[in-house]
Amino acid sequence: MTYDLIVLGAGPGGFDAATAAAGYGLKVALVEKRSLGGTCLNRGCIPTKLWLGATSAIDELHNQSKLKIASGEVVVDFAALQARVAKHLAGTRKAMAMQLEKLGVDLFEGFGRLAGEGTVEVEAADGIKTLKYANLVIATGSKPIYFPGLEPDGDCVLDSDMFLAMETMPASLIVVGAGFIGLEMAQVAHRFGAQVTVVDAMDRVAPLEDPEVSKALLSIFKRWKWDVQLAKRVAGLRTVDGKGVLTMDSGEKLTADKILVAVGRGPVTEGLGLDTVGIEVAMRRIEVDENLQAAPNIYAVGDVNGLIQLAHAAAHQGHHLAAAVAGKTDGPYESGPVPSVLYGAPEVMRVGRMENEIFLSPERCEVSRAQLAANPMAQAHASTQGFVKVVWADGRVAGVTAVGHDVSRLTTPATMIVAQGWTGHDLHSVMFPHPSLDESLLAALRAERTPVE
Amino acid sequence: MTYDLIVLGAGPGGFDAATAAAGYGLKVALVEKRSLGGTCLNRGCIPTKLWLGATSAIDELHNQSKLKIASGEVVVDFAALQARVAKHLAGTRKAMAMQLEKLGVDLFEGFGRLAGEGTVEVEAADGIKTLKYANLVIATGSKPIYFPGLEPDGDCVLDSDMFLAMETMPASLIVVGAGFIGLEMAQVAHRFGAQVTVVDAMDRVAPLEDPEVSKALLSIFKRWKWDVQLAKRVAGLRTVDGKGVLTMDSGEKLTADKILVAVGRGPVTEGLGLDTVGIEVAMRRIEVDENLQAAPNIYAVGDVNGLIQLAHAAAHQGHHLAAAVAGKTDGPYESGPVPSVLYGAPEVMRVGRMENEIFLSPERCEVSRAQLAANPMAQAHASTQGFVKVVWADGRVAGVTAVGHDVSRLTTPATMIVAQGWTGHDLHSVMFPHPSLDESLLAALRAERTPVE
Repeated sequence: MTYDLIVLGAGPGGFDAATAAAGYGLKVALVEKRSLGGTCLNRGCIPTKLWLGATSAIDELHNQSKLKIASGEVVVDFAALQARVAKHLAGTRKAMAMQLEKLGVDLFEGFGRLAGEGTVEVEAADGIKTLKYANLVIATGSKPIYFPGLEPDGDCVLDSDMFLAMETMPASLIVVGAGFIGLEMAQVAHRFGAQVTVVDAMDRVAPLEDPEVSKALLSIFKRWKWDVQLAKRVAGLRTVDGKGVLTMDSGEKLTADKILVAVGRGPVTEGLGLDTVGIEVAMRRIEVDENLQAAPNIYAVGDVNGLIQLAHAAAHQGHHLAAAVAGKTDGPYESGPVPSVLYGAPEVMRVGRMENEIFLSPERCEVSRAQLAANPMAQAHASTQGFVKVVWADGRVAGVTAVGHDVSRLTTPATMIVAQGWTGHDLHSVMFPHPSLDESLLAALRAERTPVE
Repeated sequence: MTYDLIVLGAGPGGFDAATAAAGYGLKVALVEKRSLGGTCLNRGCIPTKLWLGATSAIDELHNQSKLKIASGEVVVDFAALQARVAKHLAGTRKAMAMQLEKLGVDLFEGFGRLAGEGTVEVEAADGIKTLKYANLVIATGSKPIYFPGLEPDGDCVLDSDMFLAMETMPASLIVVGAGFIGLEMAQVAHRFGAQVTVVDAMDRVAPLEDPEVSKALLSIFKRWKWDVQLAKRVAGLRTVDGKGVLTMDSGEKLTADKILVAVGRGPVTEGLGLDTVGIEVAMRRIEVDENLQAAPNIYAVGDVNGLIQLAHAAAHQGHHLAAAVAGKTDGPYESGPVPSVLYGAPEVMRVGRMENEIFLSPERCEVSRAQLAANPMAQAHASTQGFVKVVWADGRVAGVTAVGHDVSRLTTPATMIVAQGWTGHDLHSVMFPHPSLDESLLAALRAERTPVE
C-alpha cells in the first residue's frame, strides 16, 4: 500500500497537515519519534501558558496591592502545578490520538527517515517498518541551540526543555537570551518570588520587537527589580558547587540557583536521510519554494523550513499543504500577516510591519498610537503601562504592535485589519464593544498619524 | 451666535457626537445636567468593570484552589476600592473636559430643554441661558425603571445607581432581574463573599441570550451555591428592620441585607420640551427614522431613541451623526452587527443572529460549536466550562455567541466576521495566534455544521 501522504513529525505543522489531509479523504500516515503535539504541546507554548495561568492571581493581587485595594497572599504549589501540567498534556495527547484514530490516520511511533524516493523507514520499538508514500511532509520541528561552550549541563544550566521539567522553582534565576521564550519563563519565576537576572548580547530586551516595546518592557522589569544586563557577551556557563555560574566576556561572574539558556532554536534535520532524495540542507534548514516544496512530492512545514518559528504558522502551513495535496487549492502558499504574542503580564503582540522596518520603504509611512492608561480595562486591572502602535503605509494599516496588560486580545482583530489593509474609512465598519481593551486598538487607529522620517 | 450643533447629554452618544463634530470643524455646544460620561462612566459600565478588575484575583485563586494548585487568600478593601473608583471617574471626567476645551466645544452644565425650533434653554446654577442651534442631537440616555410597588427605597432596596454608591458590600444580596447589569453586580458581591439570590420573572437567567448560554450560566451559578429563583413574580420589596424583604406573588418571602432591583432602564425624556418642536414620545422613547432623525434638524442617539441600550452603540450613532451633520457622509445610519458583552468570570459575548432567532428564517441555517474545555488557555485558567456557537445563514456567518472564561476577547473578531459575512472559505485568510482563547472561535467556525430545524 502506498500512502497518499506521510507526515514526519506530529507537532502543530505535522499534526494539522495529517488530520486536515485525512479530512479531505486521503490515506495518511503520521510518524512521531517522541510525543504527539511536538515541542509546542510538550515542551513549549502550552506548559508555559499553564504556568502563567496558574500564577495569574499572584500578578493581579500584586497590582491591586500596589493601589492598596487588595491584600493577602497567593501561594502556588509548584509540584501540584507540574502534576497538573503533566496530566493536561497526557490528556491532550490522548485526545489527539483519538482524533487520529477517528480520522483513520495511521500513527507510527518511532524515528522516521527517508530511504530513497517514495520510501520512509520508521525505526520503532518493535523493529524497522518501511512505508511508501505518494507525498511526504517533513515537519520535524526545531530544538534549542547553543553557542559553543554555553551548552546546558542539565544540573544548574538548563535549556527550556529542562526548565519546564524542573521539580522545584529556583529562588534565583539567570536567563540568557531576552526573547519571548526566556521572558515568559522569567515572568513565571518572578511570580514564584525568584530573583531574576536577564542577560542578552543585544542592547535591548525582546530585540525582534519594536524598540519602543523593548523600552516599555525594560521599564516594567526594572520596577520588578530585575537585573537586566544588555549588550553583554557570555563566555561560559557552568555548575559550580550546586549553583549556576555565568562568566561574562569581561570576566565578570553572576551566580544563581539556575541558569536558563534560551538563545534560540534550530531546525531538526539530522539523520533524516534527506540526501537519499537529493534534498540539501543549508544552515540545518530545509529550503522550500513558494509551494513549501523541497523536492518532487516532498514538502516541509513549520520550524524545519526556517521560514518562521511559530506554532500557528506551522499549523497554517500544514492546513495549506493538506489542501494542496488533496487538490483542494492551487497557487502558492500565502501566510498573510503572521501574528506573534508574548504572554504574561505585560503581554506583547505584533503583526505586520513595524516602524523600524519601514524607514526605507517607498511608501508614505505613518504611525499612530494610543496609551493603555486611557483604557478603563487596563485601569480596572491596575496595569496601565503600555501602548498600542499602528503603522500605516500609503494610508493602509500595515502593522500593529502593543505592549501591556492583556494586549494579546488585540492580536486577532489586528491580524484581520492588517490582512485586509484597512484605511481610516474602514474604522466605522465594525463596532468595538465598550468598555474593552480592544478600544485601545480603535483609539490607536483613530489617533493622529505622524510621518515616519 | 448659532451653534452648528448642540448636544443634550454627555454620555457615550452625546460626548462622541460633540467631539467628533468639533473634530470636523463645527461649532458645538454640549449640555449636561449631571456629570460628563453619563451613566456608562459614572453609574454603569465603568465602575462595574473596576469592581470586577479589582476582584479578579479572588476568582483566579478560587479556580486554581479547586485544582489544589494554589492556596491563600485575597482580601479586597471595599472602601479603598470605592475611593479608587471615585478617583478614576473624576480623572476621566477631567480628561474629558480637557478634550472638550482643546476641541473648542462649549460645555454648559445644567438641564437643557428645547424651547421652540432652533432654541435650547439651559437651566444652570447661575440662571437660564438661551442657545441657538442649526442642528440638535438629543442624547439624554436612560435611567433605571421600576414596576409599580417595586421601587427602591434607598435603604435596603437599591437600584444600580445606589448599589454602586454603597459604602460596604452586603453579606447577602437579592438581585431582582437576571440581565447583564444584575448578573455583573451579583458576581462582584459573590467575590466579596455575599450569599447571592437571583430572582427573575422569566424562566431563565440572561433571558436575552441564547438559551444554551442561559443554561451554562445557571449551571455555574448553582455551583457557586447561588439561590436562583426563576419564573417567579415579585409582589413587593421593602426594608423591614434594616433588612431587605422580598415578597413573591405566592406570598413567599426572601430576606437579605440588600436587594438590587435591576429590571431594566428606560429613556430620559421628561421635561425636555419635545412638544415645543412637535416631537411626540411613545413609551418614553424618541422615535427616529433611518437617519436617526426625530424632526427637522433634530436627531436622537443612544438609549433615548430606544434602538438598543449599549454604550458603544450610542457612541457609534454619535460618530455617524457628527459625520452626517458635517456633510462627511450621506445615506442612512448603519450600525452593522452590534456586539454585547457580560463581563466577569464567566463572561458572555454575542453578536449577530442567534439560533433561537432564526428558526423561521427563509435561509438555510446551521450551527457549529466548540467547547472551551478543548482550549489550552481556558485550561490554563482552570475555567473550562462554556462554549462558542456559530450561527450560519446560507453558508455565511450570521451570528456568534460564547459563554465562559475570557470569551469577551472573541467579541471584536466575531463582530468583524459577522459584519463581513464570512464563508468557510474565508477561514484560511487570517492566522489565529496559538495558543489563544481566540482559537475556540476558530474551532467553532471550523466545526461540523448541523442544520437548525
